[in-house]
Amino acid sequence: MDWDRERRTGVAEAVLCQGKTLAQIGAIVAAASAEGRRLLLTRLWATAHAALLPDVANVLDYDPLSATAVLGDPVPLAASGIGIVAAGTSDLTVAREAARTLAFAGHHAEIVADVGVAGLWRLMERLEELRQWRVLIAVAGMEGALFSVLSGLVAAPVIAVPTSVGYGVATGGDTALRAALASCAPGLVVVNIDNGFGAAAAALKMLRVSELAHEWQQAKA
Amino acid sequence: MDWDRERRTGVAEAVLCQGKTLAQIGAIVAAASAEGRRLLLTRLWATAHAALLPDVANVLDYDPLSATAVLGDPVPLAASGIGIVAAGTSDLTVAREAARTLAFAGHHAEIVADVGVAGLWRLMERLEELRQWRVLIAVAGMEGALFSVLSGLVAAPVIAVPTSVGYGVATGGDTALRAALASCAPGLVVVNIDNGFGAAAAALKMLRVSELAHEWQQAKA
Amino acid sequence: MDWDRERRTGVAEAVLCQGKTLAQIGAIVAAASAEGRRLLLTRLWATAHAALLPDVANVLDYDPLSATAVLGDPVPLAASGIGIVAAGTSDLTVAREAARTLAFAGHHAEIVADVGVAGLWRLMERLEELRQWRVLIAVAGMEGALFSVLSGLVAAPVIAVPTSVGYGVATGGDTALRAALASCAPGLVVVNIDNGFGAAAAALKMLRVSELAHEWQQAKA
Amino acid sequence: MDWDRERRTGVAEAVLCQGKTLAQIGAIVAAASAEGRRLLLTRLWATAHAALLPDVANVLDYDPLSATAVLGDPVPLAASGIGIVAAGTSDLTVAREAARTLAFAGHHAEIVADVGVAGLWRLMERLEELRQWRVLIAVAGMEGALFSVLSGLVAAPVIAVPTSVGYGVATGGDTALRAALASCAPGLVVVNIDNGFGAAAAALKMLRVSELAHEWQQAKA
Amino acid sequence: MDWDRERRTGVAEAVLCQGKTLAQIGAIVAAASAEGRRLLLTRLWATAHAALLPDVANVLDYDPLSATAVLGDPVPLAASGIGIVAAGTSDLTVAREAARTLAFAGHHAEIVADVGVAGLWRLMERLEELRQWRVLIAVAGMEGALFSVLSGLVAAPVIAVPTSVGYGVATGGDTALRAALASCAPGLVVVNIDNGFGAAAAALKMLRVSELAHEWQQAKA
Amino acid sequence: MDWDRERRTGVAEAVLCQGKTLAQIGAIVAAASAEGRRLLLTRLWATAHAALLPDVANVLDYDPLSATAVLGDPVPLAASGIGIVAAGTSDLTVAREAARTLAFAGHHAEIVADVGVAGLWRLMERLEELRQWRVLIAVAGMEGALFSVLSGLVAAPVIAVPTSVGYGVATGGDTALRAALASCAPGLVVVNIDNGFGAAAAALKMLRVSELAHEWQQAKA
Amino acid sequence: MDWDRERRTGVAEAVLCQGKTLAQIGAIVAAASAEGRRLLLTRLWATAHAALLPDVANVLDYDPLSATAVLGDPVPLAASGIGIVAAGTSDLTVAREAARTLAFAGHHAEIVADVGVAGLWRLMERLEELRQWRVLIAVAGMEGALFSVLSGLVAAPVIAVPTSVGYGVATGGDTALRAALASCAPGLVVVNIDNGFGAAAAALKMLRVSELAHEWQQAKA
Amino acid sequence: MDWDRERRTGVAEAVLCQGKTLAQIGAIVAAASAEGRRLLLTRLWATAHAALLPDVANVLDYDPLSATAVLGDPVPLAASGIGIVAAGTSDLTVAREAARTLAFAGHHAEIVADVGVAGLWRLMERLEELRQWRVLIAVAGMEGALFSVLSGLVAAPVIAVPTSVGYGVATGGDTALRAALASCAPGLVVVNIDNGFGAAAAALKMLRVSELAHEWQQAKA
Repeated sequence: MDWDRERRTGVAEAVLCQGKTLAQIGAIVAAASAEGRRLLLTRLWATAHAALLPDVANVLDYDPLSATAVLGDPVPLAASGIGIVAAGTSDLTVAREAARTLAFAGHHAEIVADVGVAGLWRLMERLEELRQWRVLIAVAGMEGALFSVLSGLVAAPVIAVPTSVGYGVATGGDTALRAALASCAPGLVVVNIDNGFGAAAAALKMLRVSELAHEWQQAKA
Repeated sequence: MDWDRERRTGVAEAVLCQGKTLAQIGAIVAAASAEGRRLLLTRLWATAHAALLPDVANVLDYDPLSATAVLGDPVPLAASGIGIVAAGTSDLTVAREAARTLAFAGHHAEIVADVGVAGLWRLMERLEELRQWRVLIAVAGMEGALFSVLSGLVAAPVIAVPTSVGYGVATGGDTALRAALASCAPGLVVVNIDNGFGAAAAALKMLRVSELAHEWQQAKA
Repeated sequence: MDWDRERRTGVAEAVLCQGKTLAQIGAIVAAASAEGRRLLLTRLWATAHAALLPDVANVLDYDPLSATAVLGDPVPLAASGIGIVAAGTSDLTVAREAARTLAFAGHHAEIVADVGVAGLWRLMERLEELRQWRVLIAVAGMEGALFSVLSGLVAAPVIAVPTSVGYGVATGGDTALRAALASCAPGLVVVNIDNGFGAAAAALKMLRVSELAHEWQQAKA
Repeated sequence: MDWDRERRTGVAEAVLCQGKTLAQIGAIVAAASAEGRRLLLTRLWATAHAALLPDVANVLDYDPLSATAVLGDPVPLAASGIGIVAAGTSDLTVAREAARTLAFAGHHAEIVADVGVAGLWRLMERLEELRQWRVLIAVAGMEGALFSVLSGLVAAPVIAVPTSVGYGVATGGDTALRAALASCAPGLVVVNIDNGFGAAAAALKMLRVSELAHEWQQAKA
Repeated sequence: MDWDRERRTGVAEAVLCQGKTLAQIGAIVAAASAEGRRLLLTRLWATAHAALLPDVANVLDYDPLSATAVLGDPVPLAASGIGIVAAGTSDLTVAREAARTLAFAGHHAEIVADVGVAGLWRLMERLEELRQWRVLIAVAGMEGALFSVLSGLVAAPVIAVPTSVGYGVATGGDTALRAALASCAPGLVVVNIDNGFGAAAAALKMLRVSELAHEWQQAKA
Repeated sequence: MDWDRERRTGVAEAVLCQGKTLAQIGAIVAAASAEGRRLLLTRLWATAHAALLPDVANVLDYDPLSATAVLGDPVPLAASGIGIVAAGTSDLTVAREAARTLAFAGHHAEIVADVGVAGLWRLMERLEELRQWRVLIAVAGMEGALFSVLSGLVAAPVIAVPTSVGYGVATGGDTALRAALASCAPGLVVVNIDNGFGAAAAALKMLRVSELAHEWQQAKA
Repeated sequence: MDWDRERRTGVAEAVLCQGKTLAQIGAIVAAASAEGRRLLLTRLWATAHAALLPDVANVLDYDPLSATAVLGDPVPLAASGIGIVAAGTSDLTVAREAARTLAFAGHHAEIVADVGVAGLWRLMERLEELRQWRVLIAVAGMEGALFSVLSGLVAAPVIAVPTSVGYGVATGGDTALRAALASCAPGLVVVNIDNGFGAAAAALKMLRVSELAHEWQQAKA
Repeated sequence: MDWDRERRTGVAEAVLCQGKTLAQIGAIVAAASAEGRRLLLTRLWATAHAALLPDVANVLDYDPLSATAVLGDPVPLAASGIGIVAAGTSDLTVAREAARTLAFAGHHAEIVADVGVAGLWRLMERLEELRQWRVLIAVAGMEGALFSVLSGLVAAPVIAVPTSVGYGVATGGDTALRAALASCAPGLVVVNIDNGFGAAAAALKMLRVSELAHEWQQAKA
């Protein structure tokens, strides 16, 4: 593990479990546990989690909806102005991956769900609330129209997370991804399909723009 | 030419000029002209139009913005409740192809332009007007978010025409097309990229649903 | 749920079960049941249906062929002139999803099956019957040639539903989808692959073109 | 040049001009001319042909519609039962490439044009004529529905040549190609997009099935 | 079933089992059996076959390697000059589907296997044998180089069947398909990926070129 | 024009000239000029700029390298901690589009060029400088490896702009885009191919995270 | 089996088990065993291995991580200067397939793992070691940035093996593959996704460049 | 320019002119010329070369067929055992780019052209010659069958360069690229489409495997 990454880049390394064998996951958790380190695991599917050895599974705080697990004690949470908007119920798994990643870093983020654009007033009713946030994470699959609509309504940066929800041309999330990238709303930024972790990491980096302001002033002076 | 098509399917055959040689286009126009028939030509690019022989070009009413031409006398126009909504200025070429096709068939259709969803209130300001229409043609490129938003707001059928406007992942219109097909707004129907003619033909067929009602009642009786 | 959608757009919201957890589906059904509302569920695969809690499954009228379920009492059916044409036996699942959606809204639609174009006379034998319908839903996979042939023979609007039936280049339905969009038969409109629900919703909207005629006349006056 | 190819495979080598420099084309023609050989050149665009040196261009019989050229004296033509069916006017360039290739080999082939399936009776009117042919070459772009319809109506083998005619999803001919490959009409065979030359070569090889019958009987005996 | 297809097109209709429910397959077999008809079923996977009702399964002659089944008595086989060449062991399933289809129609076809081009002399050793055939079916996955090499060596028509054998860029067979279509060997014709049935149907049609010769001579006279 | 957009979203609307006719561009510039407004035009290719009417062209400050033009007086520039890193010389057009967009909004951004990863030490030599910035825009085509390397080295957010530089598999920029999205460096965010304007808009929004901090504290209180 | 291949091309033929039936694998192993030959089997998944007949499985040395099996006695290993670099833990399966292939041919290759570029110093720390190797095999999935960085740092040839590790746009390995091919580091060569066997074979061929030097000098003399 | 690259990686940096402005190319050449350095420029199309300022163009040795230019005095050439095989005449542009790159580095490479596999004996006639080479560069477009055939016949490493020669499914070279990657001939390595420069760079690196042998022995000792 790259334990130095958080200091260097502002985001701690996490363990992407998909693609790793159970033995590899177990070894990583054991090593971190032995060193007393906290650790976030992502894309740990329920079947994989159920197949872990008990002494590995027992030290993990597992959340099946987001398929994430946390090793180590929780940190106190503070509200930092990051909010998460999910278009539909099916997008909640990814939204929750983002929220769990933020919580791992000590930030509480509210999730506003079921505000897809086919029923536009549901989004409009929450607009004042959304405009108060400093960074928004938008999660949507299918045609991803939420990204453009939302980004045209708020001043804060919006991070689009396309999801693999849908069928036919929406299969795999490529349509939502392309829609986010082709958006006519300037300033919208995008991460990989289903990458709630990456969106949270980006949000954490954006918070650092404030923190870096002081260093920047000093460097220039 | 399939002169019987209008009677059979409700839509007259048109000449798709792209892919035909100048000689082929000229021969088709001359034959129709000799028979005293009206004819609609689509995708007749300005350079092709300029290269036509004068006696062909002179009998055509050419519109460079939509790249359409009409042979024969115009018919009187009536407003039948078909409206066209275009997301941006660049979508006007396709919107106008639809309007010219409808006009060829005797229907006037209003075009409401520059109502893209990045500035949502522009669409909302026109909503009452849009809700009065019986059939809507929506024209949009880029991420095509207009399709879902619009279709979620009106009761009339919406025909989505994705356009090839845009660059990067929007190049060629495939992103807008997929977005229209993957839309979470039920009932949205789609035609080929840049196919303003096809959208107008579909609108004409939808008007026939009223006309066919009587025949249907009789057939059942 | 967007209970107001039917009034606003003419089509009631349905629950797309694919992508939702069993718990999420159960919660939606329970909430609707508690409010005494009717509800249509689509893409509820047999394995998911079998895994629902008994008190959820028991209140649903489930149809395994179309993978749809209905909560609430059936409404009386009327024949409104909507017909469904399916190219092959394998397309019946999608055809039936459309029929079940129409039945949920009170419309009976006949299904004419096994009229693929490789045996053209099967289609031709039924042609007079098909020409009486006001709206046609055409369901086909593989190369989707049925769409063009059918749309060139009838005056009513034809809604193409490509299906994911087939293998090799037909896998996933993309070939049938592209064929529908590229059709040389003007006026053909298209919905997403396997989207029988969407086609039915579009047909319902097209019926409204008649109903909206009166309002349109008044608005103009 | 592979002058032995005709004896070995039944089809003479041709010169694919696209991708070659003018100097390369000129050198090939000069060498063949010096040896007194006949030669077929394909995809020699009008601009390339116009830029050839006069002593090269002058020895060629050039046909701009099909972009083919022939070096050497024409051979007498015989009708061998090969027919060519083209869906639309724009497909004639490819149909003619096939006809020119067959003529180079001494076979006359009739072209039946403008029998696309959106006006099905145009095809049906010619059906008796088409059923007499021994090998059919079908040329179509857009959605390529002609391939399946035709192949379901005749006993002779049908060779599908998809063309790059069309726009939007039909751009480049990939949709027509996929439709031909996914056809529900068994026995349909396919060549590359716009490859009229290849279809003619396949037809020539199929004629050899008769000729090879005798050798086959002998080899078995 | 389209029982007239064989008379009309020279190829009997077969039942593509993939995509059909067990009940649908059972009903088709029962109906054919009741009428005393012979029937070929393709893509009937072993798991589906095992799940059929005993009275359906018992009347079928099932071959697990090719996933084909035959209803009805076998017909006597004759060698008609059709040969099948398979690049590798994994291509045998598709090669055998072709052979079973030909046997259903009364033709014996030899299969020459393991002659991939990475060991070219294996193909060269069999060349004299291959050159005696009247029609060749070539079956290959991966990069599909066998198609071009083989087609450049024999005078008889070659039908390429790309297979879905392989991984990475070869996954699904698209690479072999494209290689067959792009082949520099003129006259090569192609069917869908894994479509051994279609290749056999095409071979049957090519045999008819001989039979149709007589009718053609008469029609011209 | 959506003149209110800057107030609402923090980014002024710009005119995307690609896809618009010269007349449309001229009308937009004239209208803005008449109202005394400042305006940024992007993707105004040199040939289009040269074809504008003189009274339109004369009021524009045109930069051919970035294909951008500005209407109205320049605003004073301040260094705000936004830096731009370009992998190669060919990426400078896009880098400069970003810089011009930032300058239009009053921010000076330095461009560090020719730091592609094939010569890693060029990037390492500038690392200290890069680490002082608050927001980084990274511009790269080809394989886009710069994005991951850079994002793993700095704490500030990195906005990846893939460019269409390259040939073969790099054509059109899709490879660089996918590489940015698939990056193993968490927190990297991405905009459309060649979208220097969008990256600058995102950077402007990220600066607002600081400004919004105060409002956020108040809203919570 | 092509037992002559090693002598002819420098690489022994291996058995690609994916796509073969258990019976086919068993027959190949039995035949080789009967002849006393050594044999390498690749892509023999654990489930397939477990389903082999005991007398087949018992003669194989199976390695589940790389899904490879070896028949016959191991050969003594020598270190020849081939090294393997793997970006992440998930890439070890492919890296190990390469190492097992090399070991089958008598070459020991060290694997350096977890040196992905998001933590660049991990790679830099090992650089001196890597620079001593004569041939490098680089294994990476996701965005494949390791390929360019590594190839820009060493003089020895680098063989890129993209892996199918990742999700979203990284699914299937196509992004890593394209990144390798589009690399700005000249001289990088690429094999198919997950093809550790092919990379090892290429490395073996590169070693022969030394051996062939002598023959080359003689041939010239 | 990265003047140190040759020492570090064994391959000098070259200037990829495509995507650079004339001014940028001119500046690079002028700077190198002022320093007295040699320089290779690739993909300098004839139109771009013709538009260079005379004092830039005059110092370059330009080859229009390969679109390469060299600044500085030629170095003496030695034959090192690298050979280039081109499938067709159209592939010579890429083959020559490779040869020019090798010549820039002091190596003479012979080009064997017109040995496509549709006429296999042309390749077989040259086989003894080809087997003497130490490294082979194979250049082919269309279906790229040459790669597998050639790699199965020689012991030296083969570097496949797919070319963009062809039309239809061969357009852009993707089919040849996939065929090279999916090859059943183990040890074949691949570079980007049309990347003759990259293939030559890889060949140069492979020659270093011999040179590095000594260092490797020392490092181990």
